[in-house]
Amino acid sequence: MSPYLSRRLGGMQPYVPGEQPRDRQYVKLNTNESPFPPLPAAVRAAEREARSLNLYSDPECLALREKLAALHGIGVGQVLVTNGSDEALNYIFLAYGDDERPFLFPDITYGLYPVLCRLYGIPYRQIPLREDFTVDTAACRSAHEPLILANPNAPTGIALPRAEIERLLALDPDRIIAVDEAYVDFGGESCIPLAERNPNLVVVQTFSKSRSLAGGRLGMIFGCRERIDELNAVRCSLNPYNVNSMTLAVGAAVLDENERYMENCRQIADLREDTKQKLEALGFVVLPSRSNFLFACRSGLDGGRYYRMLKERGVLVRHFSQERIRNWVRISIGSPEQMQILLRKTEEILKEERI
Amino acid sequence: MSPYLSRRLGGMQPYVPGEQPRDRQYVKLNTNESPFPPLPAAVRAAEREARSLNLYSDPECLALREKLAALHGIGVGQVLVTNGSDEALNYIFLAYGDDERPFLFPDITYGLYPVLCRLYGIPYRQIPLREDFTVDTAACRSAHEPLILANPNAPTGIALPRAEIERLLALDPDRIIAVDEAYVDFGGESCIPLAERNPNLVVVQTFSKSRSLAGGRLGMIFGCRERIDELNAVRCSLNPYNVNSMTLAVGAAVLDENERYMENCRQIADLREDTKQKLEALGFVVLPSRSNFLFACRSGLDGGRYYRMLKERGVLVRHFSQERIRNWVRISIGSPEQMQILLRKTEEILKEERI
Repeated sequence: MSPYLSRRLGGMQPYVPGEQPRDRQYVKLNTNESPFPPLPAAVRAAEREARSLNLYSDPECLALREKLAALHGIGVGQVLVTNGSDEALNYIFLAYGDDERPFLFPDITYGLYPVLCRLYGIPYRQIPLREDFTVDTAACRSAHEPLILANPNAPTGIALPRAEIERLLALDPDRIIAVDEAYVDFGGESCIPLAERNPNLVVVQTFSKSRSLAGGRLGMIFGCRERIDELNAVRCSLNPYNVNSMTLAVGAAVLDENERYMENCRQIADLREDTKQKLEALGFVVLPSRSNFLFACRSGLDGGRYYRMLKERGVLVRHFSQERIRNWVRISIGSPEQMQILLRKTEEILKEERI
Repeated sequence: MSPYLSRRLGGMQPYVPGEQPRDRQYVKLNTNESPFPPLPAAVRAAEREARSLNLYSDPECLALREKLAALHGIGVGQVLVTNGSDEALNYIFLAYGDDERPFLFPDITYGLYPVLCRLYGIPYRQIPLREDFTVDTAACRSAHEPLILANPNAPTGIALPRAEIERLLALDPDRIIAVDEAYVDFGGESCIPLAERNPNLVVVQTFSKSRSLAGGRLGMIFGCRERIDELNAVRCSLNPYNVNSMTLAVGAAVLDENERYMENCRQIADLREDTKQKLEALGFVVLPSRSNFLFACRSGLDGGRYYRMLKERGVLVRHFSQERIRNWVRISIGSPEQMQILLRKTEEILKEERI
């Protein structure tokens, strides 16, 4: 560690995003991107906005927040807009965690949560998922420790019913529960309708997957007015112009055609179910996913080996080194053609491995 | 304070950006935006990139970092790209400040520095500017406390010679010196050439002003490889895809025509000098600025009153409530027409006030 670095950063251990190798063109099923490009109106909005980039973006992000509020039937004061949902998570960990408020989250979940805790020196406790990879909600209880749940969870894809989260909110009203709904539009139930009457709830969403905007970096937080006000104070203490004006305009244009993006999500969900069946027919165990990816394993085929053999064949999926899931791979749902290639290459591999 | 908030945030006091009133159209000279819109190639780059927003931006920002490295004649490992320079400052305060490393900065400088300190609970010490608003470099010395200097300083516009900063770097090699060069392209001397041989230096820049990209949010940090590596670890712990792909493409397109943007900066600097003379002819005291704004006061005319009277007349400038500068206003250099309006309205006000 450098002599200049704050001693608070002693535990820092950066997040490693899905690889983006440049050696060849891959069928890229490793970062949960949408196979659908943004619609033309979104592209036009970016172009239009780019002409006046010499002016600052709206620090209140008002036009977009109004559209988001209308979509969800809540007040504009219940919405905060962020530079991707990772920034939303940053605000939440910074605002609600400290020595006396260790964060709880499942042992298998989005890898940025422990990274943020280590960065800020916030202790954390991991709640083991049950044997079937579902969240053990009873074990998530605590009077004061904040809880964060990815719902649907990543990389499992499994969703908790909203009613279970509602119960947790009511049982422990003095602790924050953050629900990270990055994948909710592919078949989960959003907790946004609970925000008004549960002041201990904050909900994170993103346009990266369901609205084809991974490269635009657009995240958001929903909650009661008081939670949004205090998270906005964090935002304005860090970067008052946190979202660029092109992304704000693109996000608004996307919402004008929201139903078409939701139709894309339904198509992705259908293709997910189809791919799941075909993988199962090849002997894979595939978790019941409500997201735009599948989490799968095949007895007799090591997860890391399957990942590497796919990569050699030009298909990227994501493999995690954590002990409990090292036999699994996460496969993003891409286009029908991409999924056909994945399945074909998988058959080849099984044949080659004689299993 | 809410019962959920971390006790670390007890001192939080958000930054207040320059106002963006919506009640009427203003001649907006309050946020140091460039009067020049981005060139057509930059707009085309945004449009082109928007078509593939379904894919993540490059988390390494490599293409843009290569161009920045080439521009400054340094290695690509000496460049980090951020979501506006405010995010760059965030990384620097988080990385280098703690209880035992209070930050030093001038009493009159960019208002985000104390905001970031309060957010993170980092103590800070303000070094009073000299009577003439220059930085008292002798008073900035310290063996271990990090120092941050806006150079040119804001809102004074006064620049320190690079040689003075070089001397400070050598005198106290065990402390970080961060130089915030948001306004350097309007006549300051950049410290980037010092980065290689001074491991205690980090330099922050932005494309907001000189490259007409305030709305794009593009900042950067330059330093030796070790400093950039550790700041990159902070970046990857917070938001590994921190810069959206449209802004990355626009920034690269801007650098392809860098000389034309530098010509804009020279025009703005010329207009600044012209405006300064005209204000002085009206009895104003105007500090010698190397930035794209002027800091001015007029005896007999209260700064707040001048600001309000200009606003009533449709011209926005920035007034700060800090005691030491409450008689001053900061005036961004806009287009020649905008500066004419400012001067005409100022004459009207002086007449009306009978001074």
